[in-house]
Amino acid sequence: MTNATLPSTDPRSGVTRSTGIEPTSDAAVAELTAAADAAFAALRDRPRSWRAGLLRALADGLEERRADLVATAEAETGLAATPRLDGELTRSAFQLRLFADAVEEGGYLEATIDHAGDTPMGPGPDIRRMLIPIGPVAVFGASNFPFAFSVAGGDTASALAAGNPVIAKAHGSHPLTSRASFEALKDAADAYGAPEGTIGIVYGQRAGATLVADPRVSAVGFTGSLATGKILLEIIEGRDRPIPFYGELSSLNPLIVTAAAAAARGGAIADGLFTSFTASAGQLCTKPGIAFLPRGAEADDLVAAIVSRAEEAAAQPLLNSRIHEAFDEITGRLVSDGRARRLVSSRHGDDGFTVTPGVLEIDARDMTGSVTEEAFGPLIVLARYDDLGDVRTGLAAVPDSLTATIHAEESDLADIAPLAADLRELVGRLVFNGYPTGVRVSWGQHHGGPWPATNSAHTSVGVTAMRRFLRPIAWQSAPEALLPEELRDGYAGVPRRVDGELRLAGSPR
Amino acid sequence: MTNATLPSTDPRSGVTRSTGIEPTSDAAVAELTAAADAAFAALRDRPRSWRAGLLRALADGLEERRADLVATAEAETGLAATPRLDGELTRSAFQLRLFADAVEEGGYLEATIDHAGDTPMGPGPDIRRMLIPIGPVAVFGASNFPFAFSVAGGDTASALAAGNPVIAKAHGSHPLTSRASFEALKDAADAYGAPEGTIGIVYGQRAGATLVADPRVSAVGFTGSLATGKILLEIIEGRDRPIPFYGELSSLNPLIVTAAAAAARGGAIADGLFTSFTASAGQLCTKPGIAFLPRGAEADDLVAAIVSRAEEAAAQPLLNSRIHEAFDEITGRLVSDGRARRLVSSRHGDDGFTVTPGVLEIDARDMTGSVTEEAFGPLIVLARYDDLGDVRTGLAAVPDSLTATIHAEESDLADIAPLAADLRELVGRLVFNGYPTGVRVSWGQHHGGPWPATNSAHTSVGVTAMRRFLRPIAWQSAPEALLPEELRDGYAGVPRRVDGELRLAGSPR
Repeated sequence: MTNATLPSTDPRSGVTRSTGIEPTSDAAVAELTAAADAAFAALRDRPRSWRAGLLRALADGLEERRADLVATAEAETGLAATPRLDGELTRSAFQLRLFADAVEEGGYLEATIDHAGDTPMGPGPDIRRMLIPIGPVAVFGASNFPFAFSVAGGDTASALAAGNPVIAKAHGSHPLTSRASFEALKDAADAYGAPEGTIGIVYGQRAGATLVADPRVSAVGFTGSLATGKILLEIIEGRDRPIPFYGELSSLNPLIVTAAAAAARGGAIADGLFTSFTASAGQLCTKPGIAFLPRGAEADDLVAAIVSRAEEAAAQPLLNSRIHEAFDEITGRLVSDGRARRLVSSRHGDDGFTVTPGVLEIDARDMTGSVTEEAFGPLIVLARYDDLGDVRTGLAAVPDSLTATIHAEESDLADIAPLAADLRELVGRLVFNGYPTGVRVSWGQHHGGPWPATNSAHTSVGVTAMRRFLRPIAWQSAPEALLPEELRDGYAGVPRRVDGELRLAGSPR
Repeated sequence: MTNATLPSTDPRSGVTRSTGIEPTSDAAVAELTAAADAAFAALRDRPRSWRAGLLRALADGLEERRADLVATAEAETGLAATPRLDGELTRSAFQLRLFADAVEEGGYLEATIDHAGDTPMGPGPDIRRMLIPIGPVAVFGASNFPFAFSVAGGDTASALAAGNPVIAKAHGSHPLTSRASFEALKDAADAYGAPEGTIGIVYGQRAGATLVADPRVSAVGFTGSLATGKILLEIIEGRDRPIPFYGELSSLNPLIVTAAAAAARGGAIADGLFTSFTASAGQLCTKPGIAFLPRGAEADDLVAAIVSRAEEAAAQPLLNSRIHEAFDEITGRLVSDGRARRLVSSRHGDDGFTVTPGVLEIDARDMTGSVTEEAFGPLIVLARYDDLGDVRTGLAAVPDSLTATIHAEESDLADIAPLAADLRELVGRLVFNGYPTGVRVSWGQHHGGPWPATNSAHTSVGVTAMRRFLRPIAWQSAPEALLPEELRDGYAGVPRRVDGELRLAGSPR
């Protein structure tokens, strides 16, 4: 193993420079997890209000370095500084503040009190339950979201909100952004008075593997490819103590346009769909990778509009050389093995890892698994259908996804209802008359879905993402002094379920 | 593979008879999972009130056959008909009815509505989230709870309550009880009008493995040994689509008695502890396997009382020959490798698989992993300590458990608080001045714990056990007609979180 420092490449030019960042040694990883373990014990004694303050301090810390962070990320990802990266940093800060609100509100604790009482099986003891943090969390961020799904992203925010220390693994595509994000968070945490070890970072693939294998790590949050996810899962399977792995892995995100919708607003759908599959150069986990469009003149116009926009589009940079190479390879396979027709061929730009959008077409009835491989980049497959039976035939070849989208008119609803009911079994989010890209960060958001979209029944976006890094515990007949304050009689600071009845915060008892 | 029928053995006598039950063929397993899959689609359209009615009908169905079920289980498990098995059947029925209440109440849905509105990242679409059932669930019951953790047990009840079909795997130790339980449930389900395939059963080890590998199965609930759990986990790792495995596996359940508690009520603790580790012949997952007792005259009296009761105790049958053989082997290892001293040697009775209780003693400071192997049966290790530092030394050798118990006096609380805080990281339930056996079925119960107690952050007892068999989904900008009624504007039948604010059922909007 050499001590070569990590490279950083500008995808717009393909030019690589040295970062001066050395890969983290195994010994250093062990020191970081020991520090995280010590921080975990210290964090236990801080009240929720303290933790909410920490999250807000971290949000402020990110925003104070906005200009530097955005510029650093632009040079490492080729994503536009505005509105894309600037908006993403806003989102990271917003996310931290939303979790702060949720921590203060306290409903996430699921506080429950069953007073002692008679049961059909005899006297039942006093039982009090709530969720507690699980321990140090390893966070593996994504290439395509240097802020919102990386060091300063949702996994970090939700794990900290739940009360856990975090050790992030810097992404190889944006090591300098990772370091700058870490430093912004770390400096803010230190200034706020957080225990040393609350936030850590490791660099390099080997350090990431060492981190996942470390006995002190209690869970892994991951956003990335199915292939890398499987490698990390194998490391976990080799541990003495298994830990949860929350992976957001792969998604094709089918979108269906009814004939009535195509007739009523084909032009608007063409614009929206084009923007959705080419935004951020098509490198969004919720990109609609396949769109079911009816046959007929109105949808032909819709297709022609997409083709025309794709032909005129300028080349955009992909995130790194690996994604750049894979994009052409996968597109080629969709044509050769999946037998899709090229309506617009993606072309390489003059510089760096740039490409123009590609558009493929296929008959929905001809769809197989070979045409449903995820192509990470600005590519869409248009699947043409005669009736909803064809759509069902085509959907059978589509792996379960993060999202599915239906464009339909009021007059379609009765026809579309059975399909909508079936689609909910295949995805984590069902979108109507909109686009799956742009995942709102909110209380009710669910960004997940059945395998291979994710490997869990949890979300990585929205307030309930915290549940991944919590576990329940019950106290039986505990003296009041040994209970967390949220479970003491008379405490009214959080919603609680008391003897089966849900009570709002502020309610007596 | 032979078609020999499954044997049933009376552990009280060791006499084996043929049951006439043939192992389920692979083809028959596939038919059952196909039926379960069809039932899943049909169940989706039934409202919660229908499902609550089904659960109550199942409870009634069990109780109508109480006498036959209890007698069948007595002959296959050697557990006492009353109060043990009779009480366990009551518990199974109570559990079904408690889940019916929870399904009607609807809080488990976690219904959440975020109306469309402005956000710092621009306009946010309408997002509505709730939990939905995951699909057919395979349930592997336990040898030691023929009702409450088997075919008619908590996994079945919680999976059905969540809206999923269930296929149970009959336990090899009680095939006739499994069949009788299945028939009671199936007949009640049919009479209620449940879809064919709502409840199924398979017999034989091979059929169990085939079931777990079946692509239509969406989750596995398991209560049993760590070894069998690992075999099932390996099958799951070989699936194309991974599924959650909820295993309750192994637990030592340390119990700590302070010097003050021993002085104040040593006699009562001796009685309670003896009953707790010998009840059901010590074959309870929450049996206190190790008790930390202080040195000194008062605790010596406590030990002497336990020894005296153990010496006088009659032999009780263990559940099967494998457990009977393992009990002696493990006890031997605790003495030879773990260097515990025998205070009372367990003896075989004259008939069947009977044994008398055993009591071992060790210095808490000498504890190693070799003395903390779980001995399934009436055995306890008494670990003597001088101070709480010794207890911590000893606890370091104890694997994480379902429970830990502290017996302390009011005057001890300040001393014991740090230990109680540390113990919560090692267990799923913390018991004070009581005994871990006897798990109350209630809203707040948590029966789980870190590995190797379980492999999940979920419970197998109590209302929240349903969460294992649910997954979230979000609807974005959905037409009201395509939303579940619980997520429509104006519905007030369940608690909901609306725009971040928790609202009780009955609240407007």
